Amino acid sequence: MNKAMPNILVYYNEAEKFAEFLKEHGCTSVKTAKTPEEALLHLPGTEIVLSWNFPSHLLAQPEAASVQWVQSTGAGIDSLVSDRTIPQNVVLTRIVDQFGGMISEYVFAYLLLHCKDIPRLLSAQANREWDKFSPGSLEGKVIGVAGLGSIGVEIVKKARAFHMKVHGLSLSGKNADIVDRHFTAADWKTFVSELDYLILTLPLTNETRHVINRDILLSMKSNACLVNVGRGSLIVERDMLEVLKEQQHLTAVLDVFEKEPLDKENPLWSLPNVYITPHLSGPSKVDEVGRFFVDNLRRFVQGSSLQGVVDRERGY
Amino acid sequence: MNKAMPNILVYYNEAEKFAEFLKEHGCTSVKTAKTPEEALLHLPGTEIVLSWNFPSHLLAQPEAASVQWVQSTGAGIDSLVSDRTIPQNVVLTRIVDQFGGMISEYVFAYLLLHCKDIPRLLSAQANREWDKFSPGSLEGKVIGVAGLGSIGVEIVKKARAFHMKVHGLSLSGKNADIVDRHFTAADWKTFVSELDYLILTLPLTNETRHVINRDILLSMKSNACLVNVGRGSLIVERDMLEVLKEQQHLTAVLDVFEKEPLDKENPLWSLPNVYITPHLSGPSKVDEVGRFFVDNLRRFVQGSSLQGVVDRERGY
Repeated sequence: MNKAMPNILVYYNEAEKFAEFLKEHGCTSVKTAKTPEEALLHLPGTEIVLSWNFPSHLLAQPEAASVQWVQSTGAGIDSLVSDRTIPQNVVLTRIVDQFGGMISEYVFAYLLLHCKDIPRLLSAQANREWDKFSPGSLEGKVIGVAGLGSIGVEIVKKARAFHMKVHGLSLSGKNADIVDRHFTAADWKTFVSELDYLILTLPLTNETRHVINRDILLSMKSNACLVNVGRGSLIVERDMLEVLKEQQHLTAVLDVFEKEPLDKENPLWSLPNVYITPHLSGPSKVDEVGRFFVDNLRRFVQGSSLQGVVDRERGY
Repeated sequence: MNKAMPNILVYYNEAEKFAEFLKEHGCTSVKTAKTPEEALLHLPGTEIVLSWNFPSHLLAQPEAASVQWVQSTGAGIDSLVSDRTIPQNVVLTRIVDQFGGMISEYVFAYLLLHCKDIPRLLSAQANREWDKFSPGSLEGKVIGVAGLGSIGVEIVKKARAFHMKVHGLSLSGKNADIVDRHFTAADWKTFVSELDYLILTLPLTNETRHVINRDILLSMKSNACLVNVGRGSLIVERDMLEVLKEQQHLTAVLDVFEKEPLDKENPLWSLPNVYITPHLSGPSKVDEVGRFFVDNLRRFVQGSSLQGVVDRERGY
């Protein structure tokens, strides 16, 4: 089945950039919206929505009856999946296989920052101090990657280049063969107890929400380092805050939070053993996401199966 | 030829740690010194010197007539090689194949710090600012490794894991096959002109001294990043200072200097586009260096050829 060039609605804070990219790539009917009100205005006749954090309740409105497909500009899609009012005939897709490179670079930037104690070096330089010490090394350290999708796989590859011991946890058992030791959801405590570095790349689902609680955090080595590049709600944030206050040799590198942007008043900002970054480890760059979407659009028009289709029951 | 267990002199700021290690490993006659005066006192009868920055003029004294071998605790040995008064029968050895792991970690710590703009993230956190931006990536960037010995080789391996384009320069043509493009000493300007990251791992010899001068620095891309983990005197420091002041998008990461420790008054400390670290990228850890030395000592006692023997003409 060959469909005519469909009507596309881009919902994004920089919607114009996407619209420009799409027009350059042959899309003739592209509208943009930045607010729910604008979106509602443009939904009638729209077949495809390209969006980050689309106001999902609109999809159940009569104005959205023509929508067949919603493409998220990100890898995480929990906010859409959790809305049960979205009609079942609307296909949800997310970006896959595009974030591994950038996110794994972010992870190793902070692993190296931590093990080389770069903050101490920056501070010594500011004071013109020749503060010679023996920095640590990643070699031989144990990294545990929770979530072995395309992001986790790229982290594992780089960990190999740093001669680390690599453990992994995946819910489905996927890619169990690429790690030295594999764990499943039943083994969280054993999994975390042996790690120098715990990296969370899991999707947020009913099974993973709040999986990192006080009990799990206290099972970690007291000088371990936790890196969250998955979703904020994988962690019980209040538990983490308490444990980080108690265990001052524990370090957390957090790119995602239960509520984003992180509140100005949140005490996490000022803990000395916490690095906060504003959800930028896996940026949704217009040209990368645009290429993924244009390729999917070609498949849509040709009637082929789309890339990154979300299984709503599984949650990602 | 089997020699009796020889007399060893350790000259080092933490000489006792080495002496303890050596005694644990079966060395029965180990003396320690921290000053030239102490060294002179212990030289008579000494066959082997294990040392960092040994006062080389002592080796030409009659008190040092029994010295057969000087093992440096570092990879660089320029200060010994440049002293022509050291008797030719004294064998000089340096540590080889031990620094690649640590130094390559240091290099990637700073490459990632630079491309992810971690200082901006640290500063935003200090101000509780959710400063979302699109960080750069190492992927596809061009790294040039000058010096393809064991340190350079390990940097090349890690660069591959980050999907970088890898150029290399080696004086001897060694390991030309592990890089995408290879250059020799005749090609410095062309070599540097295409690089996003230039990493100096060269030994200091007559051929490499001051090889990075104003002309070469101005041939670099204006937003490139120079990392020196070789020797300070590979660079004309005054030229570098001037160029870094003029080209504010150029970045330098410096672990080694013409004179160490770096003077408090040196203006390099406070340039915003310079990272200063106190010659710690490849730490001479007692146990690692100790193991290398003990293995070499076994060879010495057995009359086998030593590892890391320096060719004084070549200079390393």
